[in-house]
Amino acid sequence: MPLVTIKIIEGRTKEQKRGMAKDVTEAIVKNIGCPETAVTIDIIEMKPENVSQAGKLFSDNPPR
Amino acid sequence: MPLVTIKIIEGRTKEQKRGMAKDVTEAIVKNIGCPETAVTIDIIEMKPENVSQAGKLFSDNPPR
Amino acid sequence: MPLVTIKIIEGRTKEQKRGMAKDVTEAIVKNIGCPETAVTIDIIEMKPENVSQAGKLFSDNPPR
Amino acid sequence: MPLVTIKIIEGRTKEQKRGMAKDVTEAIVKNIGCPETAVTIDIIEMKPENVSQAGKLFSDNPPR
Amino acid sequence: MPLVTIKIIEGRTKEQKRGMAKDVTEAIVKNIGCPETAVTIDIIEMKPENVSQAGKLFSDNPPR
Amino acid sequence: MPLVTIKIIEGRTKEQKRGMAKDVTEAIVKNIGCPETAVTIDIIEMKPENVSQAGKLFSDNPPR
Repeated sequence: MPLVTIKIIEGRTKEQKRGMAKDVTEAIVKNIGCPETAVTIDIIEMKPENVSQAGKLFSDNPPR
Repeated sequence: MPLVTIKIIEGRTKEQKRGMAKDVTEAIVKNIGCPETAVTIDIIEMKPENVSQAGKLFSDNPPR
Repeated sequence: MPLVTIKIIEGRTKEQKRGMAKDVTEAIVKNIGCPETAVTIDIIEMKPENVSQAGKLFSDNPPR
Repeated sequence: MPLVTIKIIEGRTKEQKRGMAKDVTEAIVKNIGCPETAVTIDIIEMKPENVSQAGKLFSDNPPR
Repeated sequence: MPLVTIKIIEGRTKEQKRGMAKDVTEAIVKNIGCPETAVTIDIIEMKPENVSQAGKLFSDNPPR
Repeated sequence: MPLVTIKIIEGRTKEQKRGMAKDVTEAIVKNIGCPETAVTIDIIEMKPENVSQAGKLFSDNPPR
């Protein structure tokens, strides 16, 4: 702990995930003062038909 | 926020998800009084072998 | 299953939660076709200082 | 309720999941004193590129 | 990872949590074959007015 | 979306949360390329008796 879950729309590259994991970990360590090794992140990739905002699926009505 | 996560067994149609997203959003707005645009829903689809009740996988012992 | 988690800002009344639980359950049953007894909902109440949007805590910058 | 979510790296067999579901359910019933039927477990399988520890993806730097 | 989240109704003793954490960890290690140190568990305690089944709050209609 | 959940041990100041929310949001925007307004973060504060690693509660065996 800290345990971080990040839900994003699917389709990001491994390079993007690598950078995000590194930078989010640093952002938490900087502010919380925990050791870097304590930070676990999991990324949940969502299909656009499995997310809605304002009652509309992203696959029908993609956010801009 | 409100943020809603709905875990369901996989296999529902996009039409079912579309209706569920619309109706769940309305149900929350009606009771909480938040703006519709504040409601985000994500749907996590589960394989029957990844869910258990009473210690038995749904794939072994599907609920009726 | 379906399992539903709803994160809301703290401070809603029991009456609001009661109505939301009833109406969200109906919205899911109507669209998914599962028995009502299969729908479990849990509500997580958040303090405004524990939620941020666009990098700003709700307690500093409440959403309108 | 109890509701249990278990995130594991993908690739376990159905036999492993079956055993884990049975044994985790028993462990909870033994300590909490709830009926076995009240325990629902869902398993989320993660790709190694979607998990990081200490800022490094498991796919780059698998844990030993 | 494995990361485990257990949602239970509030009011269990520290002794019950201690036993549950130990036994659930053992149940996972036995079946998954991961090192014990890899298993993190977090327990989320729920108020009965924040959980519903079949559209009814536990506080109104406690499960037997 | 992105939706971020961060579980931390309780006791951090509002100033720490404010900084963490700002910096984690920036880390995600930088790597994913989404608008800042799309990033929602919720922070779940855990009591040490509700977290375990290697089968031991943090309240019994605090991590160093």
